[in-house]
Amino acid sequence: MRENRIRTLWRQDKAAVNGWLGIPCGFSAEIMAHQGWDSLTIDLQHGLVGYSDAVPMLQAISTTETVPLARVPWLEPGIVMKMLDAGCYGIICPMINTRADAENLIAACRYAPQGRRSFGPARALLYADGDYQTHANETVLAIAMIETKEALDNLDGIMSTPGLDGIYIGPSDLGLSLGFTPTLDPTEPRVIEAIETVLASARKHGVSPGIHCGSTAGAKRMIELGFRLVTIQSDTRFLASAAKQAVDDLRT
Amino acid sequence: MRENRIRTLWRQDKAAVNGWLGIPCGFSAEIMAHQGWDSLTIDLQHGLVGYSDAVPMLQAISTTETVPLARVPWLEPGIVMKMLDAGCYGIICPMINTRADAENLIAACRYAPQGRRSFGPARALLYADGDYQTHANETVLAIAMIETKEALDNLDGIMSTPGLDGIYIGPSDLGLSLGFTPTLDPTEPRVIEAIETVLASARKHGVSPGIHCGSTAGAKRMIELGFRLVTIQSDTRFLASAAKQAVDDLRT
Amino acid sequence: MRENRIRTLWRQDKAAVNGWLGIPCGFSAEIMAHQGWDSLTIDLQHGLVGYSDAVPMLQAISTTETVPLARVPWLEPGIVMKMLDAGCYGIICPMINTRADAENLIAACRYAPQGRRSFGPARALLYADGDYQTHANETVLAIAMIETKEALDNLDGIMSTPGLDGIYIGPSDLGLSLGFTPTLDPTEPRVIEAIETVLASARKHGVSPGIHCGSTAGAKRMIELGFRLVTIQSDTRFLASAAKQAVDDLRT
Amino acid sequence: MRENRIRTLWRQDKAAVNGWLGIPCGFSAEIMAHQGWDSLTIDLQHGLVGYSDAVPMLQAISTTETVPLARVPWLEPGIVMKMLDAGCYGIICPMINTRADAENLIAACRYAPQGRRSFGPARALLYADGDYQTHANETVLAIAMIETKEALDNLDGIMSTPGLDGIYIGPSDLGLSLGFTPTLDPTEPRVIEAIETVLASARKHGVSPGIHCGSTAGAKRMIELGFRLVTIQSDTRFLASAAKQAVDDLRT
Amino acid sequence: MRENRIRTLWRQDKAAVNGWLGIPCGFSAEIMAHQGWDSLTIDLQHGLVGYSDAVPMLQAISTTETVPLARVPWLEPGIVMKMLDAGCYGIICPMINTRADAENLIAACRYAPQGRRSFGPARALLYADGDYQTHANETVLAIAMIETKEALDNLDGIMSTPGLDGIYIGPSDLGLSLGFTPTLDPTEPRVIEAIETVLASARKHGVSPGIHCGSTAGAKRMIELGFRLVTIQSDTRFLASAAKQAVDDLRT
Amino acid sequence: MRENRIRTLWRQDKAAVNGWLGIPCGFSAEIMAHQGWDSLTIDLQHGLVGYSDAVPMLQAISTTETVPLARVPWLEPGIVMKMLDAGCYGIICPMINTRADAENLIAACRYAPQGRRSFGPARALLYADGDYQTHANETVLAIAMIETKEALDNLDGIMSTPGLDGIYIGPSDLGLSLGFTPTLDPTEPRVIEAIETVLASARKHGVSPGIHCGSTAGAKRMIELGFRLVTIQSDTRFLASAAKQAVDDLRT
Repeated sequence: MRENRIRTLWRQDKAAVNGWLGIPCGFSAEIMAHQGWDSLTIDLQHGLVGYSDAVPMLQAISTTETVPLARVPWLEPGIVMKMLDAGCYGIICPMINTRADAENLIAACRYAPQGRRSFGPARALLYADGDYQTHANETVLAIAMIETKEALDNLDGIMSTPGLDGIYIGPSDLGLSLGFTPTLDPTEPRVIEAIETVLASARKHGVSPGIHCGSTAGAKRMIELGFRLVTIQSDTRFLASAAKQAVDDLRT
Repeated sequence: MRENRIRTLWRQDKAAVNGWLGIPCGFSAEIMAHQGWDSLTIDLQHGLVGYSDAVPMLQAISTTETVPLARVPWLEPGIVMKMLDAGCYGIICPMINTRADAENLIAACRYAPQGRRSFGPARALLYADGDYQTHANETVLAIAMIETKEALDNLDGIMSTPGLDGIYIGPSDLGLSLGFTPTLDPTEPRVIEAIETVLASARKHGVSPGIHCGSTAGAKRMIELGFRLVTIQSDTRFLASAAKQAVDDLRT
Repeated sequence: MRENRIRTLWRQDKAAVNGWLGIPCGFSAEIMAHQGWDSLTIDLQHGLVGYSDAVPMLQAISTTETVPLARVPWLEPGIVMKMLDAGCYGIICPMINTRADAENLIAACRYAPQGRRSFGPARALLYADGDYQTHANETVLAIAMIETKEALDNLDGIMSTPGLDGIYIGPSDLGLSLGFTPTLDPTEPRVIEAIETVLASARKHGVSPGIHCGSTAGAKRMIELGFRLVTIQSDTRFLASAAKQAVDDLRT
Repeated sequence: MRENRIRTLWRQDKAAVNGWLGIPCGFSAEIMAHQGWDSLTIDLQHGLVGYSDAVPMLQAISTTETVPLARVPWLEPGIVMKMLDAGCYGIICPMINTRADAENLIAACRYAPQGRRSFGPARALLYADGDYQTHANETVLAIAMIETKEALDNLDGIMSTPGLDGIYIGPSDLGLSLGFTPTLDPTEPRVIEAIETVLASARKHGVSPGIHCGSTAGAKRMIELGFRLVTIQSDTRFLASAAKQAVDDLRT
Repeated sequence: MRENRIRTLWRQDKAAVNGWLGIPCGFSAEIMAHQGWDSLTIDLQHGLVGYSDAVPMLQAISTTETVPLARVPWLEPGIVMKMLDAGCYGIICPMINTRADAENLIAACRYAPQGRRSFGPARALLYADGDYQTHANETVLAIAMIETKEALDNLDGIMSTPGLDGIYIGPSDLGLSLGFTPTLDPTEPRVIEAIETVLASARKHGVSPGIHCGSTAGAKRMIELGFRLVTIQSDTRFLASAAKQAVDDLRT
Repeated sequence: MRENRIRTLWRQDKAAVNGWLGIPCGFSAEIMAHQGWDSLTIDLQHGLVGYSDAVPMLQAISTTETVPLARVPWLEPGIVMKMLDAGCYGIICPMINTRADAENLIAACRYAPQGRRSFGPARALLYADGDYQTHANETVLAIAMIETKEALDNLDGIMSTPGLDGIYIGPSDLGLSLGFTPTLDPTEPRVIEAIETVLASARKHGVSPGIHCGSTAGAKRMIELGFRLVTIQSDTRFLASAAKQAVDDLRT
């Protein structure tokens, strides 16, 4: 079975540099897949991406060595399993607020006896190879988003859930939940503190910590702090800001 | 932030005239958007419309001043939030039968502290403008469908849910639930009575009442009764009936 | 091989009542296919329909007995043959202005020795049946649009082209070419005269005459005049006018 | 209303031979629909098929007499109802593990008073005919997948659920749940025994038993055992194995 | 009829700043449309964009004031007319090498008597307004690409073609045709000289000159030289370079 | 630049075993790409594949080492260049009947000075690598279909066209053109003779000969005869025949 390079990086205590895909298009995904990311996450939650859009995006990513991940819209077993069957090597699930949420996520990502994932790895077999069934449980990543006050209150319960591979902080939602303006580059002390609390808890429980960042500088800082899956912005932001800068430069 | 003209009409105690889209196509949506409707609702429940079909339909509607709404397939937070992120200015949710249902709908439509909506208004930012986060909670409409006997039994609880902007009667399902043949133009006294009960309850609680109508005449009547969001038929019915009439006229 | 009911009607000197599809969607095509048309023409020229959109539209039409036709964007052999391979039972080709144009159209619609159509009836085999190759040349219709002054000047040459099954008048383009405002209901005497000239020439040469009409009344008139393929408006016009009328009725 | 030929076969105690569609494409579905299957199931769970892909597949199947079914991704009312509105004549639902699961499935498949299905049979009306509402409850099939140890423990409760038309065994998941390697052709005695237990229970409760098979030989055996809905492999397996055999034959 | 703002800018002797779309996606087009471009060109030649992809892109652009243009794959009347019917306000046509090429391009862009464009402005009516037919000939832009040695040899003939609104230099192809490595920022004296020759000829004949540029700096230089339609890079380059820079910054 | 493995095989005087794709779907293309073919040809002529369908198919093929080719619908420069820009490593062009046809095909496949291909290798750069421009002319294959009596009459002229890499016999069309029933397994002596004549001419002129075969046995025979690009059937035939055999086996 094809290895999951994120796991390899994590075993070496290195951070995976992750790109983010919100444009529902195979070609833009393929362009992104050639820019040097360790992994790319197809965002089915806040991206404009539906399941059928995601399939050619996965194929586009699979033309390279970049590891394909997906963020699902919600903790719903149907879409988690569909994305895994389509060849994703990890699921980032939003709004994991309780131990029960974390258990349900993991159950959807693992075949019995570790979980309740239904068997039928349609495209995963092509991507990963014929021995997918044997190694899937140890290869595929289950990553829980920690992004609410409620999750902070249940940190230990979530982090200690057997089978949880990683957590992923959504700074915008976390800030919003704590009463602040949502931003990917939080400076509010209480948000920073919450991020550090989550990071410490993840490390304590041997769970790999991840976070979404608004800039390369922010991502560097987060890696230094100890995060091991860092995302820089997204395809939509890259496109918008590069185009805007070109136009603005010309207009001035 | 771009205003929600339905709210403006409601503040003036005027009815919004709503069109209904069941054809999964951006071009037919754009044609409809040029016919003078105050709003258009993309029907992801009974229309043949999936999420990915809805995105170009929203873009087509956004070429005009028509307000874009969506009816979601079911009370499921993932699709509610996806449609809002895609730029819908209101969600009509089927089968709201209890106070808890209503609360869950509203939670999915509102950012904290009023709700649990996750932050990431991908296309909504383009449609509404950069200050979306500040005004979204007061702009986006949460509309609960009242269409079962169970909902009638729980009317007060549903109508008094904080944050509920409107209700929307599905006469077909309401009739069916009461034991009659489903129709958009009910004449059965018990169905009429139920509609009047819902209307009275909505007014009592300051919730804007809406209803689906089978004809212009029916819509006029409903506006006179006090409904403030009235839908006339749908794109599929307009197409079918106009074509059928042309063929029948020629054949006779 | 499945019969071409338009040919059957023509043998009985009856007119085929044709619907017109400009919305690129299988569902709207299927709705149209249930309204009683003898045939439906997918408009790849002025409709918003590309080849890939046309395939599910053909499948939708094939759920009924309605005969599927296509108007191609231009006299280009590639798209003519692709539409036939996809199961169309006739091609309406715009802007046939000379005998050579007509010959090229027919060559693209017929297998050797009558023409140069390449063999590979992918979906046509499923739609028509396994003996497609044997009967295709006598089943599939080649219909030339007569819609310019140049075509009027070359009428005899065009009409006498061996293998030409029908002609189809585009009143808008014909009027425009003669110097008048384009309309589907021409009243300008010189346009009427041109239409009658084409009709007479078609009858003289045993070619079935067709025409696009702006209303049922116009279509009736054209049938009485002798036209044998009459189209009434289109899906886009039906949708727009029915919706507009509903809104206007309500607003007044 | 168009009859459901699976019910007709079942009344005659005959088995329906079912094909399986995992390729998200209308053309491959139409090819399959011409090969003699009694029914075809669009697999929205393990197939690479999203809702929007399924619509043209249903249209393609409807060009023939083959009965269209769908396997939904999960027990979620929204997608069950959407597939029925799109014209499916039966729903196969995965992971029905308890009596409550079975009740929820049936509620989603039936209009009141038997269930809670919402009214709006958009395309079903075209496919089935105008009297759909009157006969839908007795025509549409609700089929529960029995594929876990938990379901085996709750067999009587599930099988006796009023309105359950059929059950469908997923041998891979059933084997996996019992601790064995997943396979469509189980030989493990405990899996065989479980299959026979399910079959006996289905017959006892008058529920039609179905099963997915890995080969024609296996399907024959299952029919002899008493199964009345047997699936042979899938479009993806047929394509892969026929192509592989051609290449391998040439290489040797 | 909605004005063509490029013509307005040109009348003021101002340059239109043009963006370029090669990603076949409505959402990326809408993002681009919000970055301040005067116009956006959908590239059906070298972009990965087919006709059906272009329709939602046009709708996305039409949500803003940005003027929609298209570069067609080749001088073929079918696609030129289809893009105009879909609402493009100008056509950039590659490889116009002779006076006859230029005449054919213009004929495809203009209704009689100036040209041979067929009448049926499906979506253009919605975008431009009901009086489209009256003003289309003076609104829509016909722009010829000058990008070969052959075109240089025929400059006067091309530039003096009645109805030619603009020309557009493709520096890559022009360089290649002259024997040099293709680049959007040519420094080769013979390529520079050719560009200046084309510019001088355009001005002499009152044709608005345009050019594709590899950078904002290059675009500024071209505006100073006298170009009036300048494109900076493309969506694909913006996305690739911004993403690559983020990754590279992080890795170092 | 990524090598073209067909050229490598040809240099070793080995035959490339080619698969054929007529199903417009990325997933079926990916399944085919895993079955051991040296190359896969996307059939835009008789397949149900439009340009936009072909893009995800190319991405799917690019997840493997299989060489991607395309058969275009017709000798039209726009689509030839679009398919090359999308990353095809060779073009098979139907109906090359004269030396001029062959020259036009080659001109469309080659950058100046060998041809007139326009520069803009959008996806080809990602697939082949950044030095695409330098090596494309020697890497990309131009393959002319010989399938008419007219082509047989012009064999020497066609075969001796500078830059022609290969020819490809369409036995169905060739037979049809010679007056026989079209078949992929011709037994008619005059068709066999024509095939041998083409083969001999190809070898004489150093052009690699290819042919479409109806079976593995036929393909083996053709390789022995000297053909160096042999296609076995197609995805549609594999799917249909494997499914039909399964059903028939069960029914008997």
